[in-house]
Amino acid sequence: MKVIRKVKEMQEVSDRLRREGKKIGFVPTMGYLHEGHLSLMRKAKESCNSIVVSIFVNPTQFGPGEDFERYPRDEEGDRAKLEAEGVDFLFIPEREEMYLPGYQTHVEVGEVSKGLCGDFRPGHFRGVATVVTKLFNIVKPHLAVFGEKDYQQLLVIKRMVKDLNLDIEIILGILIREEDGIAMSSRNAYLSPENREKGLMLSRSLVKGRISFESGERRASVLCKTVKDSLESVAGISVQYVEVRDAETLEKIEAVDRPAVIALAAIVGGVRLIDNIIVGR
Amino acid sequence: MKVIRKVKEMQEVSDRLRREGKKIGFVPTMGYLHEGHLSLMRKAKESCNSIVVSIFVNPTQFGPGEDFERYPRDEEGDRAKLEAEGVDFLFIPEREEMYLPGYQTHVEVGEVSKGLCGDFRPGHFRGVATVVTKLFNIVKPHLAVFGEKDYQQLLVIKRMVKDLNLDIEIILGILIREEDGIAMSSRNAYLSPENREKGLMLSRSLVKGRISFESGERRASVLCKTVKDSLESVAGISVQYVEVRDAETLEKIEAVDRPAVIALAAIVGGVRLIDNIIVGR
Repeated sequence: MKVIRKVKEMQEVSDRLRREGKKIGFVPTMGYLHEGHLSLMRKAKESCNSIVVSIFVNPTQFGPGEDFERYPRDEEGDRAKLEAEGVDFLFIPEREEMYLPGYQTHVEVGEVSKGLCGDFRPGHFRGVATVVTKLFNIVKPHLAVFGEKDYQQLLVIKRMVKDLNLDIEIILGILIREEDGIAMSSRNAYLSPENREKGLMLSRSLVKGRISFESGERRASVLCKTVKDSLESVAGISVQYVEVRDAETLEKIEAVDRPAVIALAAIVGGVRLIDNIIVGR
Repeated sequence: MKVIRKVKEMQEVSDRLRREGKKIGFVPTMGYLHEGHLSLMRKAKESCNSIVVSIFVNPTQFGPGEDFERYPRDEEGDRAKLEAEGVDFLFIPEREEMYLPGYQTHVEVGEVSKGLCGDFRPGHFRGVATVVTKLFNIVKPHLAVFGEKDYQQLLVIKRMVKDLNLDIEIILGILIREEDGIAMSSRNAYLSPENREKGLMLSRSLVKGRISFESGERRASVLCKTVKDSLESVAGISVQYVEVRDAETLEKIEAVDRPAVIALAAIVGGVRLIDNIIVGR
């Protein structure tokens, strides 16, 4: 695996790969890789013969008071995992080169960025859309894979790619869970054993919602309440939101008469966790 | 010359050109072509062996009450000029395909979009930055040429390309004037003979500013006043702004101690005209 740290070098490598007729698959990450990330790379490999992974903890998608500074980092461990996975190129840019002096351009996606995490992390999706545009312009992939754990992010990127005519296929990677059901996340590393146990309630409460749906309940408000009540039955979990939305557009719906996502965010022991489940698909 | 109307077809053609090792030079326009536009194509030809021109009167860069509907259009005449110029591809997308239902993404460039035309045309540079990003993603050029008549636009695009890591060289095309000095513009077609005569005052007043600079005047305020007084000496010219700015960053300056642009906008007989001149370079 070749490690590339400079923007210009990455662009030149990608130009060469394209001239050679390679199909470039790209997985952007913030590092501290787990099975969830690795599954995205395997997904890219199914249809691409040159895999690029980026690791960049992007400061502009963290709000004031969020965990940018303490976000877990482990470049050596990540490199070993990527080597083992057969990744071809690892792009690790420096913050200084990604945001040059005088930096002043932003990509903003509208409606789909609003509500859900958008309400609790102002500026987050603008930071994401902007850095992903930059990474796309640097890596020049044919295809990119985004995990459905960050479901709103996935839809923001899909909308942006369509609206800006980016000639890149966006592929969804399924949400990967630990054996006990908790959604894999680099942020799980923050959890104390006690809070790790509480964190299980996110996926368990979503399963309750799904069971209710499968028993015939279609009212979004009732499904939300089932999930929220379940979450709040445990002390020390502070719910930010539980919502049922159209799985394609993320529009609010009153009844699940089409594929829908039940999405939630909660603070557990000071750690913000998200999870979601798709119903009706 | 091949005329392409579909986004996907243009992307496929560009992919093929790149695989064949061609260097793609791009000139985006709103059509109604004049010598100013054609000079940009000749500029592109100096270093590129495949020239793409787009014609798209982009609705999102016109404000309410501006001239989107009546903007002059002449596809047949334009095609003849482009054929004669030896342009390889003409991309003329339809509005419906450029802005699909649910469109909601914007590219916004900060400081350099503010002041000057940015103050008088709210949303204009956001519309420009967004459509140029889209066109770049469709045409995938190695190089693009922008005229210095739209000086602020040129700097907005340069900043955006740098900030978003677009792997495209941005080249400046010099401002082309009619024999009597008026800056070439598709909008000159709106002018009555009487107002066409008044329109000459824009370039003449800028020349007065330059003469003052060449005589040793360095104070921005005095240079502005010279130009403004000259412009306002003729009835029927309504000045929007006359400003002296840093030619590279467009920052306000008090003294011309580096290359600077004297830029102005004025309404002549209901027609908004702009012009500029560079001093100290």
